[in-house]
Amino acid sequence: MSNSTNSSSVEPALLSENVQMLAAVDDDHGGVIVEMSKPMDAETFASSLRASLSDWKNKGIKGVWIKLPRELVNLIQPALEEGFWFHHAEPSYLMLVYWIPNTEHNTIPANASHKVRIGAFVMDDRRQVLVVQEKNGKLRGLGVWKLPTGTVDEGEDLHVGALREVKEETGIDTEFVEVLAFRQSHKSLFEKSELFFLCLLRPLSFEIQRQESEIDAAAWMPIDDFKAQPFVQNNDIWKHMVEICSARVDGSYTGFSSTYLRSTFTDSWNYLYWNQGNRDPHSRASNMNNNS
Amino acid sequence: MSNSTNSSSVEPALLSENVQMLAAVDDDHGGVIVEMSKPMDAETFASSLRASLSDWKNKGIKGVWIKLPRELVNLIQPALEEGFWFHHAEPSYLMLVYWIPNTEHNTIPANASHKVRIGAFVMDDRRQVLVVQEKNGKLRGLGVWKLPTGTVDEGEDLHVGALREVKEETGIDTEFVEVLAFRQSHKSLFEKSELFFLCLLRPLSFEIQRQESEIDAAAWMPIDDFKAQPFVQNNDIWKHMVEICSARVDGSYTGFSSTYLRSTFTDSWNYLYWNQGNRDPHSRASNMNNNS
Repeated sequence: MSNSTNSSSVEPALLSENVQMLAAVDDDHGGVIVEMSKPMDAETFASSLRASLSDWKNKGIKGVWIKLPRELVNLIQPALEEGFWFHHAEPSYLMLVYWIPNTEHNTIPANASHKVRIGAFVMDDRRQVLVVQEKNGKLRGLGVWKLPTGTVDEGEDLHVGALREVKEETGIDTEFVEVLAFRQSHKSLFEKSELFFLCLLRPLSFEIQRQESEIDAAAWMPIDDFKAQPFVQNNDIWKHMVEICSARVDGSYTGFSSTYLRSTFTDSWNYLYWNQGNRDPHSRASNMNNNS
Repeated sequence: MSNSTNSSSVEPALLSENVQMLAAVDDDHGGVIVEMSKPMDAETFASSLRASLSDWKNKGIKGVWIKLPRELVNLIQPALEEGFWFHHAEPSYLMLVYWIPNTEHNTIPANASHKVRIGAFVMDDRRQVLVVQEKNGKLRGLGVWKLPTGTVDEGEDLHVGALREVKEETGIDTEFVEVLAFRQSHKSLFEKSELFFLCLLRPLSFEIQRQESEIDAAAWMPIDDFKAQPFVQNNDIWKHMVEICSARVDGSYTGFSSTYLRSTFTDSWNYLYWNQGNRDPHSRASNMNNNS
């Protein structure tokens, strides 16, 4: 990350009473966050930014974040000219960042690097698996029956995402049992990586209502027919995952189930996924409370 | 995602011979990717973009990606005016995206949503755990001994990231044994979520060389002393994780170890992490080959 402009080179003239400092809040890591919201012309912004950088430098501030809504793209260029670089973007805004100290190493946290996806293994008491054919994607029109899959939203617990995707695609209500395995892959979207969690869910309803926009067909299919498909048999990673599913329903495998635990330090509650042994999940609730 | 401009409204005058179409490559999902590299004035770009959108629409193209290096920020505004929105950004570029079909639902993949971090549990034969004190972060100066932790890079296998972080922070060489548990948390960086993988590594060397820029101290500490710290005892999630580590080294717990498997469909090799039972990892290599 280059610091092309030295923020100490602010001209005294710019520090006249006409130059307003940018409003900033602390980021809890020795830096500040500037959230721009009102229209401003690029020159005024550049002056304010230079004066503010000088002030922050004197105060020992390290990282500086600037969040620009899409309406204020005219302020990108002046920020880049001061040495800022792109950190991340979402549909409605761009986040720029700058490191004030004259050190080669900065502690600006990396941008999110992974997408998180789930695949749901849902089997009824007659050893029938819930499967779908997708309208889009690489398997479209190939007649392949696959497990319901989907992307976990940011802010969403992955087992909640699994339940949601199954409900959306098939109308089936489920409860989470275990993460059976997970796979990491790379360059899934441009340079980004992906984590795919294979989840065992227990069905709570059985009448299928497929999502017409994304799903061509949905069905309960005997597990042996599902396994016998060339797509599964000729694909080492899917063959392996389906064998894990089979072993789990036959009682000879355990994955990771979830426990909701508090971090006193960050004052937050999060799910920990771990191997709780081959217990009945209905009795796990009481066990979870004992552990937490 | 709003499509504020209808790309079919291109004026015939714009389609004169002076308007050059933007160079684009297919994205394998019915869309195109435009990678801008040469300087262009905003008006010329706007005309080319409108003409290209009209052409792509006629060809049934769905998603349109435009990658703008930081040198071409002057082209952001015209793209936004055609209805593009921000998809993601990296230090050197901004990616914009647009959905041509007149459908409410688009299949533009979501941006990366998660950071991936690892914590490394490394224990020697004398039940001493490799621990560090960090120079930065919330634990700075509190005297807390913690496991080495770090962020997995995009494109990096998480167990490789664990080995790398331990080597960087402490100079200790290790080999990967298992993912013992993982935790998902939210709003770790602005709105992004985080997955933290607790990894069991086996030490291959024992002489500590700490990383001076990030680590205040590194040591081998008796596991009972490590567990007895108030930071561990008063923090449900860390107490739980350390108990899992203890159970694993005592042989009463198994996590997920890795198998390198091929997806014939995507023609890629990826690691699958799954419960391979309480086997010695040195004998696992041959077993992995049998399975794959």
